[in-house]
Amino acid sequence: MKEEKKVSVPVIRRLPRYLRHLKEAAANGIRRISSKEIGRKLGATDSQVRQDLNNFGGFGQQGYGYDTETLSENIGHILCTDRNFTAILVGAGSLGTALAKHMGFERYGVTLLALFDNNPEVIGSKISRFTVRPVSEITDFCRKNNPDIAVLTLPGDAVDRSVEILESMRIKGFWNFTGRELNIPGVAIENVHLEDSLMMLTYAVGNPLAHKKETK
Amino acid sequence: MKEEKKVSVPVIRRLPRYLRHLKEAAANGIRRISSKEIGRKLGATDSQVRQDLNNFGGFGQQGYGYDTETLSENIGHILCTDRNFTAILVGAGSLGTALAKHMGFERYGVTLLALFDNNPEVIGSKISRFTVRPVSEITDFCRKNNPDIAVLTLPGDAVDRSVEILESMRIKGFWNFTGRELNIPGVAIENVHLEDSLMMLTYAVGNPLAHKKETK
Repeated sequence: MKEEKKVSVPVIRRLPRYLRHLKEAAANGIRRISSKEIGRKLGATDSQVRQDLNNFGGFGQQGYGYDTETLSENIGHILCTDRNFTAILVGAGSLGTALAKHMGFERYGVTLLALFDNNPEVIGSKISRFTVRPVSEITDFCRKNNPDIAVLTLPGDAVDRSVEILESMRIKGFWNFTGRELNIPGVAIENVHLEDSLMMLTYAVGNPLAHKKETK
Repeated sequence: MKEEKKVSVPVIRRLPRYLRHLKEAAANGIRRISSKEIGRKLGATDSQVRQDLNNFGGFGQQGYGYDTETLSENIGHILCTDRNFTAILVGAGSLGTALAKHMGFERYGVTLLALFDNNPEVIGSKISRFTVRPVSEITDFCRKNNPDIAVLTLPGDAVDRSVEILESMRIKGFWNFTGRELNIPGVAIENVHLEDSLMMLTYAVGNPLAHKKETK
């Protein structure tokens, strides 16, 4: 595999979509796939698909296409889903519960280690295979287990204090569902704004002609 | 306001982010804001910001900047958050519960009318101001209430049947959290793939040098 540097962020942002479609194809027993077929699924041209994948050395053969499984593995490698990162989740309300139960973190190479909450009614309760721990134990837990990632599913007004603690525990990345924009130099942040998605939907519902041409 | 047609999808996709930052600024008492300040928040140049907003006739004055409240209202109007759409939610598990409780649909001009589930243990339970109804009542409910939007938070394997029913009830848009890619001609679909976001995070954690330059 060639060097993975200098790939532009928009290309990287498209990789998870490639991966989703490749995995689906593989699950349906499709062993090889052309850039055209990948493109059709994603509303992109085959030349864009080829160009994107060429950033990583290609993995394809002219006239043959791509081996779905090999390409999936390679994209997964680029996206670091084979690194076995560990994570904790802070805020075991309904959203935290939903993620712990249904996200399937392992499929993306992330092992969820523990859930934390500060609500006495939630602490000690069982969610999936976890017993919710009190937030006060975060520091000790991090010292012992060195998690890479913190999933933040706590209310926006409780964020600052938790982030301060987690930062001092050298968390490398935050998956942030709190609605509060985080920006910590040198730390990876993925802010999730579901409202942006909801507004894209209201736009599309309100402009039925505009979205007919769009493919996602 | 000028014509709103022919605005490219990438521009539309940036509008919710502008709106978030403008609302935040307005909430902090900032009454006017320059394209430079908006750009700094979003990691864009001021000329890109101006160009984007010019698509809609501008709303700004040279040397003055933008009135945060007016611009918010105008962007909200473009995104159709002032249309008073109605919605139902199908799948009242932990994710559906999280959205019903915390999403604040009204802030985006969407009124949530009802929650549906097919689990006897969930039917009849109270979530936020809703009593969960059985999925079997969806058809009747839609006939009487004509909801615009369906939020899909049910498991992937139960999607097809529900979507079939909802399509026949002339739902105009689906907010789809099921992981199954939906594509229905003439219907607005917003597929939410949280795993894409998780993989952007694993990428950033695994490539600490790459994300230092990125701003979201």
